[in-house]
Amino acid sequence: MELYSGYINKLIEELSSLPGIGNKSAQRLAFHLINQPEERVRRLADTLVDARSKVRYCSDCFTLTDRDTCPICANANRDHKTIMVVENPRDLAAYEKTGKYEGVYHVLHGAISPMLGIGPGDIKLKELIARLQKDVDEVIIATNSSLEGETTAMYISKLIKPTGIRVTRIASGVPVGGDLENIDEVTLLRALDGRKDL
Amino acid sequence: MELYSGYINKLIEELSSLPGIGNKSAQRLAFHLINQPEERVRRLADTLVDARSKVRYCSDCFTLTDRDTCPICANANRDHKTIMVVENPRDLAAYEKTGKYEGVYHVLHGAISPMLGIGPGDIKLKELIARLQKDVDEVIIATNSSLEGETTAMYISKLIKPTGIRVTRIASGVPVGGDLENIDEVTLLRALDGRKDL
Repeated sequence: MELYSGYINKLIEELSSLPGIGNKSAQRLAFHLINQPEERVRRLADTLVDARSKVRYCSDCFTLTDRDTCPICANANRDHKTIMVVENPRDLAAYEKTGKYEGVYHVLHGAISPMLGIGPGDIKLKELIARLQKDVDEVIIATNSSLEGETTAMYISKLIKPTGIRVTRIASGVPVGGDLENIDEVTLLRALDGRKDL
Repeated sequence: MELYSGYINKLIEELSSLPGIGNKSAQRLAFHLINQPEERVRRLADTLVDARSKVRYCSDCFTLTDRDTCPICANANRDHKTIMVVENPRDLAAYEKTGKYEGVYHVLHGAISPMLGIGPGDIKLKELIARLQKDVDEVIIATNSSLEGETTAMYISKLIKPTGIRVTRIASGVPVGGDLENIDEVTLLRALDGRKDL
């Protein structure tokens, strides 16, 4: 039986399919939105569509951006010879927030996970290797310290070692099993300082 | 400094202004949405706008519906002489889910709260009184058992008593301070059975 209206049910259904939003939160959100000014809801809808349609990968580091090259890669003041490899744009944001890292990034968009069937070809790895054709001094591997992150770090290090480029791993200041994005800036910086050659 | 893209920042900002969604959840949602197929995001956006623009109040009970009269008020098999007064459509949904209540509803869209400056004129109270012109046997007050809900119940009971119509309050099977929508169906039914005259 349709309790409220097909439109509300559809909205609740759409919202509850989002990560971290259960049926109860979806209901709460739906009723909140229906009570908002129409213009506000339209703005949210437009923002959603805009973000989805205009945002793409940076052609250098593969983070999300609305330009061809992201502001970090386009910044001539950054050290383009040091590349920090992260799993996703939120991890990039976590290091960027420290304000102390001067190099550039490479976003893998995932990590190698035999369990989930994610192989080296499923993440932006060959794109990283291609970047090493240019003048690169050091690759800092800042994947998460999870099983997948460590596996990915090992894999990358083995790939890059033969080229003679320095490969480092952020220090174990990062708690084992933790996600980079949830870690405080001091710990992130300590991990960066304590990085060691692989 | 714009880390990702103005479009993503705007999306994160819009999302984090929703109730129960903090900055971290908003980031997670934004990145999730950007990785969804464009068609999926467009559907969510359309659903949002549709729900907001097509949903309105039932002209009888003031619950949310996309018709002039909601399916419950339009149902001739329901007992239109018994009106259950609830604070919001989610509370209506909670009782409706028990499948045992045969009467109709009246949705106040709030409760009297001197603390928040919400007076009797700010909720659908005069609309309730207007409905009593028709043939009504009983008004069951099912506002939450919070301070505001109790205040509202007392106020309504004093308004209706002089008309001679029976006014009841759902029993205190509902834990004090709890919200109707979070309570199991058995407790909701016990509270309905144990209702007493005010």
